[in-house]
Amino acid sequence: MAWVPQRDRPSRTPHVAGAWGPRPPLPIDPGLHSYLAGPERGRFTTVRMVRADGDDEVVATEAARAPATGGARVAERLRRTILGPPLRSSAVVHERVRKLVGLPVFSSDALSSVAYGPEAMLAVLVLGGSGALGASLPIALIIAILMVAVGASYRQTIRAYPHGGGSYLVASENLGRVPGLAAAAGLMADYVLTVAVSIAAGIAAVTSAVPALRADAPELGLAVVAVLLAGNLRGMSSAGRLFAVPTYAFVAAIGIVVAVGAVKAAAHGFATTPAPRIEPTEPLGALLILRAFASGATAMTGIEAISNAVPAFQPTAWRNARTTLTWMVSLLLVMFAGTVVLVHLDGIVPRAHETVLSQLARASLGGGPLYAGVQAATALVLLLAANTAFNGFPRLLYFMARDGHAPRAFLHVGDRLAYSNGIIALVAAAAVLLVVFDARTDALIPLYAVGVFLAFTLSQVGMVVHWRRHRERGWRRSAAINAAGAALSAAVLAVTAVGKFTEGAWLVLILIPGLVLCSLAILRLYRRTDAALSMSPGSWDARAGETQESPDQVRHLVVVPVEELHLASVRALAYAASLGTPVLAVHISTAEQEATRFRERWEAWGDYVPLQILASPYRAIVAPLAHYVAALHAQRPELTVTVVVPELVVHRAWQRLFHDRVAPRLRRALREQRGLVITTVPFHL
Amino acid sequence: MAWVPQRDRPSRTPHVAGAWGPRPPLPIDPGLHSYLAGPERGRFTTVRMVRADGDDEVVATEAARAPATGGARVAERLRRTILGPPLRSSAVVHERVRKLVGLPVFSSDALSSVAYGPEAMLAVLVLGGSGALGASLPIALIIAILMVAVGASYRQTIRAYPHGGGSYLVASENLGRVPGLAAAAGLMADYVLTVAVSIAAGIAAVTSAVPALRADAPELGLAVVAVLLAGNLRGMSSAGRLFAVPTYAFVAAIGIVVAVGAVKAAAHGFATTPAPRIEPTEPLGALLILRAFASGATAMTGIEAISNAVPAFQPTAWRNARTTLTWMVSLLLVMFAGTVVLVHLDGIVPRAHETVLSQLARASLGGGPLYAGVQAATALVLLLAANTAFNGFPRLLYFMARDGHAPRAFLHVGDRLAYSNGIIALVAAAAVLLVVFDARTDALIPLYAVGVFLAFTLSQVGMVVHWRRHRERGWRRSAAINAAGAALSAAVLAVTAVGKFTEGAWLVLILIPGLVLCSLAILRLYRRTDAALSMSPGSWDARAGETQESPDQVRHLVVVPVEELHLASVRALAYAASLGTPVLAVHISTAEQEATRFRERWEAWGDYVPLQILASPYRAIVAPLAHYVAALHAQRPELTVTVVVPELVVHRAWQRLFHDRVAPRLRRALREQRGLVITTVPFHL
Repeated sequence: MAWVPQRDRPSRTPHVAGAWGPRPPLPIDPGLHSYLAGPERGRFTTVRMVRADGDDEVVATEAARAPATGGARVAERLRRTILGPPLRSSAVVHERVRKLVGLPVFSSDALSSVAYGPEAMLAVLVLGGSGALGASLPIALIIAILMVAVGASYRQTIRAYPHGGGSYLVASENLGRVPGLAAAAGLMADYVLTVAVSIAAGIAAVTSAVPALRADAPELGLAVVAVLLAGNLRGMSSAGRLFAVPTYAFVAAIGIVVAVGAVKAAAHGFATTPAPRIEPTEPLGALLILRAFASGATAMTGIEAISNAVPAFQPTAWRNARTTLTWMVSLLLVMFAGTVVLVHLDGIVPRAHETVLSQLARASLGGGPLYAGVQAATALVLLLAANTAFNGFPRLLYFMARDGHAPRAFLHVGDRLAYSNGIIALVAAAAVLLVVFDARTDALIPLYAVGVFLAFTLSQVGMVVHWRRHRERGWRRSAAINAAGAALSAAVLAVTAVGKFTEGAWLVLILIPGLVLCSLAILRLYRRTDAALSMSPGSWDARAGETQESPDQVRHLVVVPVEELHLASVRALAYAASLGTPVLAVHISTAEQEATRFRERWEAWGDYVPLQILASPYRAIVAPLAHYVAALHAQRPELTVTVVVPELVVHRAWQRLFHDRVAPRLRRALREQRGLVITTVPFHL
Repeated sequence: MAWVPQRDRPSRTPHVAGAWGPRPPLPIDPGLHSYLAGPERGRFTTVRMVRADGDDEVVATEAARAPATGGARVAERLRRTILGPPLRSSAVVHERVRKLVGLPVFSSDALSSVAYGPEAMLAVLVLGGSGALGASLPIALIIAILMVAVGASYRQTIRAYPHGGGSYLVASENLGRVPGLAAAAGLMADYVLTVAVSIAAGIAAVTSAVPALRADAPELGLAVVAVLLAGNLRGMSSAGRLFAVPTYAFVAAIGIVVAVGAVKAAAHGFATTPAPRIEPTEPLGALLILRAFASGATAMTGIEAISNAVPAFQPTAWRNARTTLTWMVSLLLVMFAGTVVLVHLDGIVPRAHETVLSQLARASLGGGPLYAGVQAATALVLLLAANTAFNGFPRLLYFMARDGHAPRAFLHVGDRLAYSNGIIALVAAAAVLLVVFDARTDALIPLYAVGVFLAFTLSQVGMVVHWRRHRERGWRRSAAINAAGAALSAAVLAVTAVGKFTEGAWLVLILIPGLVLCSLAILRLYRRTDAALSMSPGSWDARAGETQESPDQVRHLVVVPVEELHLASVRALAYAASLGTPVLAVHISTAEQEATRFRERWEAWGDYVPLQILASPYRAIVAPLAHYVAALHAQRPELTVTVVVPELVVHRAWQRLFHDRVAPRLRRALREQRGLVITTVPFHL
């Protein structure tokens, strides 16, 4: 036996007064030395850690995380089947990627926007009749300019925040708590909508090619969400390289569609095929143009992803990330512009059951395997885009929780090293959206852009403040670029909020301040909790009866409720008496003769402990006991009253049907009282 | 302060050895004398009870049964609104009734059978075509003879069991446990079906008059069940006299219908109106006759009710009960026979949407207010019949629970002095039947008779044995009557079981043995429990670690899991240390740096208690802690290991979202281990 005995050491924190005194020696070996040498080892293994005082540490093995009870064991086995074995904390790998891998991994969200952005814009314009569709070209030009401006703006962020410059971080650091939280709320809405919109658009790509699946769209959506949930709880980060394939395939697919379409168009001198005649349902006014612009601007979502992920690039990380961002914006520009121009030339109009991209691919490539390939690549890249939110959203909540702005449960790292709770929250929110909006892209789009551009704007404004503060070399130029980005983003935000207000943006405009207020309330809650738990002097004055900080401050009274006099209650009484404190047994009697009979049995047993009988003419047991304990405690509030509750424990859940469940109900009732301690003495049947 | 101190008294049970020693004096007054004199009294009141040793008793008032916590308080207020204020145990009234009140109260079940019995018989016969309907007269004659025989048989039971002779009691006492349980199972099925069939038939009476309600029959049925549930939980026994009205109204209604019909029939010389021609769908064979007989025999259900309720009659109770039984059987006979004969004379055949009784009333009285009155009286008496099961079923379960044959929860007397759990069980079962069988009388009838006649048979056989044992004056005659009753009941049972087997009786024939086996299993379970809890020597040998019967047998080790070093955990440590036992603090560390940081804080705090750090590289907390405690305990199994768990308690349920819930999970995991004691030290935020 080599465990280190209690050392006599002077107290270093003088406010903790009182006599802890010399403690009785431990009757067992807390280091488990001989136990681990015996046959039972396996759940624990001793790792000798070289530490200053030469202590040994007990390390739990994987087996020690398995629950011991039946029901939980089944659930655990199911979880292991779906998620795989748990991973050690040390298994976290920080893989760094080349530019050519980083490009597809971090740009699937942005590039896949081409699948729904142009269509969303046309879907608004067509309300003004087929004649209004011509407005798509100037609107697309403005969006292209915006892409360049925002891209340039984020190039500055990457340089300034080489460890990752998420909007929450940048806005918090430079603008303060509330703008940071607003950016975070915008991003949260953005991530949830990325999942919902990408899945809805991916399903639309599939149902365009396979119309038979159309009726099952919402179920398909939920199935995809379930697969993403399981995959991300399992931890899919190692599949990074695999993720490159669909993105490149999508880029190639759009490239082929645009190239073939351009060649065909060149063949008849770039003559515009007139769109089928559609009667206007709304006048082609400024509001319609603004709404079309706001919808088209969803093509810019995801443009910030690389700036969050700078440390994932090979060194020099920020330089590589910047280059990759430039590549991405260039690809996005070409794909977006090519799509819009070709749609215009081919006279394509949005239809209910086939996406614009599908019509375009059909027009360029016919209905053959090449067309099918385009649709498959589109669906896959959208799946990937949805998946990126599964990295971003939980990480955002983790950062927020670290700052006390979100429940601490989001700090929790799951079995497989994923932030499980954040993943589950994301899935729940996205599933609600998919069900409520019936997995329809056009219904979800109006909610989308507001959050994104709020986060863009706050982040760029934050960058302007950053440059002004740090005044590094060339800061004026960087600040000017970020200011331009901020101004343009703010303009888009305003356009989106106004133009889409009645179509759903109002929901997001209520949600975001609501989330900010929640975050602030959570922060206050945690601050109050920390203050209450703080060991600085004076903090406990307000908590009557729960102020004992050293053993000599504890004055005991032990109360043992005794329902019947049997082995379980006698064991509880013996336990209580063995503590050497004053003990009072309480019996509650719901019938008069019963009280007399109980007292007789009690005296026959030996009457070792003072007994108080409570008569309960209304037959209630739990509440009168709790009130009685409160009445006892009210006599001497400085006492620590321990209620020792005997409890019969059965082996199987169904057996509980056959025993009264007074003990748990009593515990629940007593827990509310201050200054009580509740001891359960289980008796296993 | 006048409470009685601990008396020194020699142990009367020598097997409980050990030193309980002189106990420290109580620091409070368990009798609450001064407390109750203070301003806070109200929840308790002291009632001086004159007892041999002059003790005072503390009596809980009605206010003391109110729960203290928010959610429970709302539920309590809702319950009080529906159920009324709780009643004292002493509020039980044993009202004794005159014959003229007892007759309607206890015979609604039997008499209301006239509303569905004849119809059920005809509904089978009509399958043999309209020509087969003539068989109704001889079948009804046999049933009438049976009624007399069973009635006479129960007259004997009343004399022999003046304190109430339910089938369960009579069969258990005279035939043994298994026949008693079989009778009980039959009765349970009977009670549930009484509720379902009576409600279904009552709704049929209503929808016959108001066809517009036909589509809502199942919902109406559930609504009636809900009203019966609330009414019976409230306790409706005091409404006894009110219950007389519908029964007498029904008797009068049938009397008028039969009388008017008879006068009309006499007017044209009792000539039979030919029934509308219906083609046979089955041959008119012996099986059809038997099935018709079995269905018609449901008219006899409820005939045993008076024999259960003998003590409710004014003295001489058994004599009055007997007379009432004779009146009831006579009424039943006349009403049953009159209905069957008149139906035959009027050529009435069962129809899908109108009951036979409704057709008969229409034929006799036209469609006016008198007809409506007949239907209303029928529906009301059927409601009353359903209600009788709410007395019988819970009381049966109470008797079974008292003998250990049913969960002890059925012993529980609710707020309003009703056996709430039995009432809830009955409602649940009846609701399931109503939903599954769509509230259709004809679908429920085949299930009905089996249980009733099983109980009849076993009870009558039991009476034969009773007479043979006791050989009172005139026992031979009584035994002969009971033997005849038993033989006839057994014959009906056999006919019903065979004839209705494929129509649903098989379900009851499986259910009844199943219930008997369950009851036997429950008995074994309780016997095992009682043996395990028994304080006789030797009973605890098998329970390692939970055998301490006196304080000197308890050897302590206290383990305190410490997640973080804050006021809540320090309070738990101080509490643990104040017990004067060896204390070990355990910290589980899910990250390596964290362990070092924790040890530094621990040492800065004062290092008053030995600390063991567990490393958990898989980040699990609860399971490794539980396994570690098990490993400690395995070193010295004779120790009583107390795990002192600090727990943050928040005021509102939603706040739990913001704190980890390790304490309750840990308690659950530890509860499974033998020989542990779990102490919760709550810290209120």
